Amino acid sequence: MGSLKGKDILHGNQFSKKEIEAVIKVASEFEKELKKKGVIPLMKGKLLATLFFEPSTRTRLSFETAMQRLGGGVIALGPAEGSSVSKGETLVDTCRTVAQYADVIAIRHPKTGSAKEAADAVDIPVLNGGDGTGQHPTQALLDVYTIRKEMRTLKNLTIAMVGDLKNGRTVHALVEILSLFNCNLYFVSPGVLRMPEEITSHLRQKGIRVEETEDLREAALKSDVIYMTRIQKERFGDLGEYERVKGSYIIDAAFLKNLGKKITILHPLPRVNEINPDVDNYPGAAYFRQMRNGVFIRMALIAMVMGKR
Amino acid sequence: MGSLKGKDILHGNQFSKKEIEAVIKVASEFEKELKKKGVIPLMKGKLLATLFFEPSTRTRLSFETAMQRLGGGVIALGPAEGSSVSKGETLVDTCRTVAQYADVIAIRHPKTGSAKEAADAVDIPVLNGGDGTGQHPTQALLDVYTIRKEMRTLKNLTIAMVGDLKNGRTVHALVEILSLFNCNLYFVSPGVLRMPEEITSHLRQKGIRVEETEDLREAALKSDVIYMTRIQKERFGDLGEYERVKGSYIIDAAFLKNLGKKITILHPLPRVNEINPDVDNYPGAAYFRQMRNGVFIRMALIAMVMGKR
Amino acid sequence: MGSLKGKDILHGNQFSKKEIEAVIKVASEFEKELKKKGVIPLMKGKLLATLFFEPSTRTRLSFETAMQRLGGGVIALGPAEGSSVSKGETLVDTCRTVAQYADVIAIRHPKTGSAKEAADAVDIPVLNGGDGTGQHPTQALLDVYTIRKEMRTLKNLTIAMVGDLKNGRTVHALVEILSLFNCNLYFVSPGVLRMPEEITSHLRQKGIRVEETEDLREAALKSDVIYMTRIQKERFGDLGEYERVKGSYIIDAAFLKNLGKKITILHPLPRVNEINPDVDNYPGAAYFRQMRNGVFIRMALIAMVMGKR
Repeated sequence: MGSLKGKDILHGNQFSKKEIEAVIKVASEFEKELKKKGVIPLMKGKLLATLFFEPSTRTRLSFETAMQRLGGGVIALGPAEGSSVSKGETLVDTCRTVAQYADVIAIRHPKTGSAKEAADAVDIPVLNGGDGTGQHPTQALLDVYTIRKEMRTLKNLTIAMVGDLKNGRTVHALVEILSLFNCNLYFVSPGVLRMPEEITSHLRQKGIRVEETEDLREAALKSDVIYMTRIQKERFGDLGEYERVKGSYIIDAAFLKNLGKKITILHPLPRVNEINPDVDNYPGAAYFRQMRNGVFIRMALIAMVMGKR
Repeated sequence: MGSLKGKDILHGNQFSKKEIEAVIKVASEFEKELKKKGVIPLMKGKLLATLFFEPSTRTRLSFETAMQRLGGGVIALGPAEGSSVSKGETLVDTCRTVAQYADVIAIRHPKTGSAKEAADAVDIPVLNGGDGTGQHPTQALLDVYTIRKEMRTLKNLTIAMVGDLKNGRTVHALVEILSLFNCNLYFVSPGVLRMPEEITSHLRQKGIRVEETEDLREAALKSDVIYMTRIQKERFGDLGEYERVKGSYIIDAAFLKNLGKKITILHPLPRVNEINPDVDNYPGAAYFRQMRNGVFIRMALIAMVMGKR
Repeated sequence: MGSLKGKDILHGNQFSKKEIEAVIKVASEFEKELKKKGVIPLMKGKLLATLFFEPSTRTRLSFETAMQRLGGGVIALGPAEGSSVSKGETLVDTCRTVAQYADVIAIRHPKTGSAKEAADAVDIPVLNGGDGTGQHPTQALLDVYTIRKEMRTLKNLTIAMVGDLKNGRTVHALVEILSLFNCNLYFVSPGVLRMPEEITSHLRQKGIRVEETEDLREAALKSDVIYMTRIQKERFGDLGEYERVKGSYIIDAAFLKNLGKKITILHPLPRVNEINPDVDNYPGAAYFRQMRNGVFIRMALIAMVMGKR
């Protein structure tokens, strides 16, 4: 297993299969240990800086929770400050300054490639919390962790990815990782939001069975897991098109009853109306458990890049 | 004494007299213990999430201080993020996500009933830090704690509530609690801001002596404690009315000298001009001590709902 | 050596030479100790309140880092809240409230004299993190600490202060401190931004050799240290004048090569274009090390005013 010590976490596809298995193993150990104790003090006396140049409460709070569950402290640059800082100073200078204070950085920035730029500028590990339409690797890892935990394996699963597959950075990274574990994939989206052709063909070259459809029910009937995503209005030039599409990919209790089989449902959240709240108590509704898994994955990544696992 | 373990703190009138006495006792013990040590580490390894969807620096900092004085950590959703989150996501979803990270939640939200809504959605204790014009129970408890500490008893006191008694959520909860201890009450307000009739008659039914007046001096002469509140311009349709009223309920050094007796003065703060700064060094001016008491009360509530007292 | 216990840190010129030497000594010990451990737990169980009424990410994060490296906790008032608080409440009331929660306050406020006002209102130590065009004493101390560390002495150095010497509060405080150590000073600025006459003559009365010039290269050739500052557009009534001036004080790799000697370069940051990034790897480029030194100096000041050193 390759050590992640001193490394940056920038791309969903930077990991070997062995590394992903190692991250999952550490996250799983932390999860068990946390149930007994409230804190695993590997980061005692260490500081995480969260630099969020655009709001992402979920991801920021998850990182800050992870660091504190490891016994460490946090210094935080808020979104309001983020935008004002970026006016007067380059991202690189801000990161170099913060690297004088903290031991590890988690960054979110609207510009694609900004996390790499930050990582190149500083001597401490940088964790990418989302850079524009680029990468969001900790999200992809927590998704994989959740699928494995819910299904007890990653091998030979059939997974349906649903919604905006064209723009979703999370699904792009996620399918790359899933392809290491020999999954079958359904891509369910309206025509205008299809998975980019280069990703689909790259997956097929690696021997992954990929099917594309516009029919959610058809895919669900053949899948073990549904990964839902939001369809964002602002992606459509033609609002009439948006109105036609937005209702097509909705899961509710009636849909699940009609399906006649158990299925596991993930969603990176926030949801708008893709998953009806009447699904929340369905046993396969894993999206809030998925949030909690994000803490364990981020704990694992922090501990590993800091050389503590 | 009923245990508060696992309970939510939502309403000022959810407490029995025994529970209020228990909270006061724990707060008082914490106060003494904190003087010797800086921290009482009952919440070590635990996290409080402060979800403030409208700004309330005083209450938020008080909760965050309380949690840290108990050895715990904090994750915080700021007001700017709060408003942006609420655009994209229901309050319930935000709270369910945060409940995957934290061990206890303190929430402030402009909508009446929102704290109850949050509490119903999650499995961890929720502390209401103010919901719209509804409830603000930790404020009411710290007020009671302050009166008891300043007067060394809660029994048979005469307390004048002054200012906007119509809209003040704090005074509504406070009089309910005080009624458990057989206090006499003066309600001092302009006609348009009188205490709602249903509260006054409810108190009288419980055998509490209530008198209403527009004359602050008259009430002060017969009272042990004055509880001042702000009169907010935005409550008046008729600004001429506001101008007539706003000067009537002001305490300054001259007023107190003229009174010819010692009296204890509370105010939930922030004040505008209801209490002149020339009163700040008056021995009975308890409003900054009241702020400190808020920390002890919130420490007690956190420890109790978490089953540590 | 005069103890700083219980004192406020308000002005760059409040310190005797002995006190400055003591602060430098403590900061230097903390720096060494931190390399071995991640934390020096002198502030365990104590809380720092950072009250930043205008954004200053660098200074705020430095204070929060310092407190956490000392094992203490932080409660923070953000700039957004700061401005809303200040609407409804006097600065003095806000500070008095926060003094009920925290053990020490770091404040930044746009009004000159506000830190003194805060310090007079509360019983706990107040550290001035910058008040308007007034003082920024922790910056001046970290600058002195950096010069001493880079040059291994403070005696008999020749230091060039470059840029906006008229408005720069940092340079005003810094030259006062340097004058205690018998430095020679070059003031390099365009005519409209010259060091105020009263400061220059005050330094000369104290026997300090001061020379004024508009020529950066001339000063650099004779100096051990260059202290660069930003020239801010908004200081100029005449924008044509700004355009003429702004290019004159720029350090880049070519300038340094042409200089033909090693020199140490400081800058309070953020920089705009006064120092080209091609200088960042130059051995004498000390400005990011300077940021780190800010943490040690603030640790020393916090520990000292709290009576722990």
